[in-house]
Amino acid sequence: MKSKGIFYMGRGDCGVCIQAEQAIVQALDRDRYEVEYVDLTDRPERVAEAAAAGVKTVPALVLDGQVFHINFGAELSALELAS
Amino acid sequence: MKSKGIFYMGRGDCGVCIQAEQAIVQALDRDRYEVEYVDLTDRPERVAEAAAAGVKTVPALVLDGQVFHINFGAELSALELAS
Repeated sequence: MKSKGIFYMGRGDCGVCIQAEQAIVQALDRDRYEVEYVDLTDRPERVAEAAAAGVKTVPALVLDGQVFHINFGAELSALELAS
Repeated sequence: MKSKGIFYMGRGDCGVCIQAEQAIVQALDRDRYEVEYVDLTDRPERVAEAAAAGVKTVPALVLDGQVFHINFGAELSALELAS
């Protein structure tokens, strides 16, 4: 069974998010990991879920229940305010 | 040909580094990426190389020439001082 990862990003035009998505997420072994992409600007109803998982900034990758903040695009609180 | 990645970590007992190594680096597709591990505490002579690549904090993963700072373990400057 594949492990599930969730990649939270800010807005579609967040350059830092796109860079992380293209390099790191695309480099993951797809035979072992299934990654869901969640743009919190488009899906503000999932901000609370991301916060509960421990996400503080985007882009962030949640893998096997652990949160990895990759570089810095935006604070989660800024996305909450924008939504 | 495989792409080369370099994973810079701080000291062997840096919990944040180990967590990132175990989850993200181990999840990379080894058919496409070859990852070198560099503990800058053990290899202080490579701090300058990491800094030149754009690494500011560890753990950091340099993939295809791009630097990804993953969570936060230590400032590179702190490692320089320690070495």
